Amino acid sequence: MSTFVVVGGDAAGMSAASKAKRDDPDLDVVVFEKGEWISYGACGLPYYIKGEIQSLQDLVSVTPEQFREERDIDLRTGHEVVAIDPDDRTVTARSDAGEVVQEYDHLLIATGAAAVTPPIDGLDRQGLYTLGSMSDGKDLREYVSRAREEEDLQQPDRGPACQFLETCNGPVGVVGGGYIGVEMAEALAANGFEVHLFQRGDRILKSFSEATSEAVLEHLGEQDVAVYLNAEVTSFEGTDAVEAVKTDDDRVPVEMVLVGTGVRPRTDLAEDAGVELGETGAVATDAYRETNLPDVYAAGDCAEATHVVTGEAVHVPLALTANRHGRAIGQTVAGERTEGGGVAGTAAVKAFDIEAARTGVLDHDIAQAAGFDPLARTIDAKSRAGYYPESGTVRVTLTVDRPTGRVLGGSLVSEYGEGAVHRSHALVGAVTEGVSVAELANYDLAYAPPFNTTWDPVLTAAKVIEGQR
Amino acid sequence: MSTFVVVGGDAAGMSAASKAKRDDPDLDVVVFEKGEWISYGACGLPYYIKGEIQSLQDLVSVTPEQFREERDIDLRTGHEVVAIDPDDRTVTARSDAGEVVQEYDHLLIATGAAAVTPPIDGLDRQGLYTLGSMSDGKDLREYVSRAREEEDLQQPDRGPACQFLETCNGPVGVVGGGYIGVEMAEALAANGFEVHLFQRGDRILKSFSEATSEAVLEHLGEQDVAVYLNAEVTSFEGTDAVEAVKTDDDRVPVEMVLVGTGVRPRTDLAEDAGVELGETGAVATDAYRETNLPDVYAAGDCAEATHVVTGEAVHVPLALTANRHGRAIGQTVAGERTEGGGVAGTAAVKAFDIEAARTGVLDHDIAQAAGFDPLARTIDAKSRAGYYPESGTVRVTLTVDRPTGRVLGGSLVSEYGEGAVHRSHALVGAVTEGVSVAELANYDLAYAPPFNTTWDPVLTAAKVIEGQR
Repeated sequence: MSTFVVVGGDAAGMSAASKAKRDDPDLDVVVFEKGEWISYGACGLPYYIKGEIQSLQDLVSVTPEQFREERDIDLRTGHEVVAIDPDDRTVTARSDAGEVVQEYDHLLIATGAAAVTPPIDGLDRQGLYTLGSMSDGKDLREYVSRAREEEDLQQPDRGPACQFLETCNGPVGVVGGGYIGVEMAEALAANGFEVHLFQRGDRILKSFSEATSEAVLEHLGEQDVAVYLNAEVTSFEGTDAVEAVKTDDDRVPVEMVLVGTGVRPRTDLAEDAGVELGETGAVATDAYRETNLPDVYAAGDCAEATHVVTGEAVHVPLALTANRHGRAIGQTVAGERTEGGGVAGTAAVKAFDIEAARTGVLDHDIAQAAGFDPLARTIDAKSRAGYYPESGTVRVTLTVDRPTGRVLGGSLVSEYGEGAVHRSHALVGAVTEGVSVAELANYDLAYAPPFNTTWDPVLTAAKVIEGQR
Repeated sequence: MSTFVVVGGDAAGMSAASKAKRDDPDLDVVVFEKGEWISYGACGLPYYIKGEIQSLQDLVSVTPEQFREERDIDLRTGHEVVAIDPDDRTVTARSDAGEVVQEYDHLLIATGAAAVTPPIDGLDRQGLYTLGSMSDGKDLREYVSRAREEEDLQQPDRGPACQFLETCNGPVGVVGGGYIGVEMAEALAANGFEVHLFQRGDRILKSFSEATSEAVLEHLGEQDVAVYLNAEVTSFEGTDAVEAVKTDDDRVPVEMVLVGTGVRPRTDLAEDAGVELGETGAVATDAYRETNLPDVYAAGDCAEATHVVTGEAVHVPLALTANRHGRAIGQTVAGERTEGGGVAGTAAVKAFDIEAARTGVLDHDIAQAAGFDPLARTIDAKSRAGYYPESGTVRVTLTVDRPTGRVLGGSLVSEYGEGAVHRSHALVGAVTEGVSVAELANYDLAYAPPFNTTWDPVLTAAKVIEGQR
C-alpha cells in the first residue's frame, strides 16, 4: 500500500488529496496543515469583511470532518511540516503533541503564499492589517464591527445611514491597487469608512489593460474612494496606533490601514529539501507539476505554472490553478498520469458596481520578449441591443500579434451584471488555442437582444482590430 | 466603375452594401428593398409587442437617410426585384413608378425568409398572426394595445394590476414552442393575457438539450403559461374571428393566435434565375457565399451556411450569420476575398426570468451521421460562489464524441442574469476549434466569487463528462 503525503490543506492540497483517494481508495492519504482552517475560499474574505457573508465557516467548502469521515483522508490540522527528507522519503511534522515522522511514496508541497509588506517605516504600528489568511479576515471583520459599534455609541441617533453607504466611520487607508486593494476598498466603504487608496504605480489593476484601469479608477472616484496614484508610501505615522499614511506628497490621517501589496510563494520548506525554484521565485515544476525531486510535486500559490501564450514559467497565484493542478496531481498519484494544463493569467474582479476580467498577455514588453509584435485596441460597445431597456457598456481591449493576428490577450470592463466577466470566456479559448483575431471575429457567439448586440462586444473588438492591423 | 447590386435591405444586404462601399468608395452600390423598412432588428419585435420598446423606429439601427446620405448607398425602398438575368447581368425591379432594369457586376441575393404556417383548417380566421416582418409586429402591438384598452373600458376600476402580470386579458394561443413562441408567450403574458402554448413535439425549444427544455417548460408553468405538448393543432375554430384552437385532445377557447412555427427561405427569385438550392431548400453557396452563378452571392435567411462541427451545409436563419456573411461578401466585392466563416448553430433566448443558450451539435442522430459517437451529460452548478449572496443555478449539458472527447455541442440554462448565455461563449470556441473536453476542463476561465464557483459551471460539466466517457 502506497502513501501520498500532502503539505498544506487548502485548494491545491485538498483537491489533490480528494482526487487521489477517490481514484485509488487503497491509497493512504495524509494531509498536514499547520493551521486549523482547511479548504477555504480566501477569495471570499473581502465579502465576509464587507458583511455579506455572516460566518467564516461559510467560506469552508468541505469541513475537516467530511474529509476525515466521508473521504477517508488522514487530515492532521495543527501540524506544521518542518522538514522533508527526500532520500528517506519522509516528512517531519510538529504539533502541540510533539514531532512525527511520516513516510511518503508521493509528496505534494502546497504551502501557498504569504502576504508581503513592503519595507515601510512604522510597520509595527497597531491598526495595520494584511489579508492573507482566515485569521487576517477574522481580525479585519472584528475591526470593522468594533468601529461601527463605537460610532453607534457616539452617534446613537444617527439612524441606519451607514447601511446606505454614507461615510460615517473614520478614514482608513488601503495600500495597493490590485484585486485585494480594490475589493477591500468596496468592503470598507460599504461599512461607512472614508477610504484612501494608495497605489505606487500610475494606475490601479495594472495587470488589466489601461482602459480597464481607467474605468475602474473613474468608478472608485464616483464611489468617493480617494485614490492616490504614483504614491509611494514612505511611512505609517503614529505613536502606538497608526495615525497617518505618509507619501512623498501627502500625509493622510487614518485610523487603520490594509496593506495589500501582493504575495510571495512560501518556499522555505521546499528549498531546504533541495527542491529547485524557478526564476519567478516559486517552485519550478514540469507539465505534471513534479519538481526536480522524484515523486515530489508542487502546486498552488507556492508553485509556478506554464503560460499558454508565452510558454514561459509564471507565478500567478489564483484559486482555479491551485484546484486544477491539485486535481491533476491527485489523478497522477492515483495512477493516471495527467497534465495540469497551462494558465492564461485570467482574473476577474468586482469593484462596487462594475466588473472586470483579463486574460492572456497584455503587457507589450512581455509580448515582445516572447517574440510577438503586439498591437492593442479598445472599443466601447453596448451590452444589450441598443433598443433594449437598461443597456450598459462593455469596454473591450484586445491585444494581438500584428503579423499573424494571433489573439494574445484581452481585458473587459462593464457595469456589474452587464457581462464583462462571463464574456471573457470567449477570449480564454482564443488565447489558449492560438486563434487569430480574424477567426475570432467569425465566431458564432450567442445573440439575443437581452444579452448583446448582434455582434457581441468581443466580436466588435475583433472586427475593429482586424481592420487596423 | 463597377456596380454592386443587393436584393433585400435587411441584415445581410445592408451589411454587405455598407462594407463594400466603405472599403471601395468608387463602387456603385444599389440596394432594392421591396418594403419600407430596412436594417431592422426583427429579433426585437417580441420586446416591442411586450411594450418594453416604444417605437418600431427604435428597432432600426441605421435609417434610410443615413444609408443614402452618410454612406452614399443608392437605396431604393418600395422596389421589388422580379427577375435576375445572369447572362445580361441585370435585375428587373418593380415599384409604384414602374419597372427599372439595373446592370450589375456583383449581385447579392438577400431575400430572407418567410414565416410558414402549417396546413391547419381555419387559417383564414381573423385574429391569426405570424411574426415575420415589421408590419406583423405592428399588427400584433396594435392587437395587444386594443385588447388592453377594451379591458380597461370594461373594468375601469381594476387598477394597474395588469402591469404586474396579473392575468386579466382574454385567453390567447401560441402555436409553436421555438424561440418566437417562447418569447411571445412572455410578451403576451406580460400584457395580462392568459397564454396557451401548443407544441407539436414532446418538448419546447427542441434545438436545445432536453435538460434545457425541461427547465424552460417548468418555468413557463410557474409563469402560468399553459403548455400543451404533443399537441398537433388540427383547426382554428370560429365563424369570422378565431374562437378556439382545436387539437386531437383539446379544444381551447382563444381570442387570438400567434403562429410561430418556423420560417422557410425565400428562394423563388433565385431559382427562377438558375441559382441552385441545397438539400435544406436554401440557396447553396461556397465558402465565400458565392452561388453557382459567377459573381452572384447569397446570404442571410435565404441561404445555407457551413456547420463548423459537421462540415455540412445547414439552414440556420439567425441575425449574426446574416450580418457576418453580408460583411464578408461586401469585403470580397470590394476586392479582398474573404470567407464568411461557419456557423455553430448558436442561439440564445430569454423566457420570463430565465435565460438559455445552445451551440454546436446536440442531436445524436446528426452527430452519428457526421461520424461521431455522441455522449451527453447534464450537471447543475451554482452560478456564484456558494457563500455569495443571491447565487443561482446554471444547468449545463455537454455533448462530446466519446472516443476522442471532442466537444460537439452544449446547452445552458439559468435564472436571468446568472450567465447561461454569456458562459456559452466558452463553448462556441471549443466547438469551433475542435477542442477536446479534457482540454476544455483545463481552460483558465475567469473566477471571482461574485461570478462563479472556482470551477465555472462549464468547467465542472467538462470534468464530469471527461470522467465518464
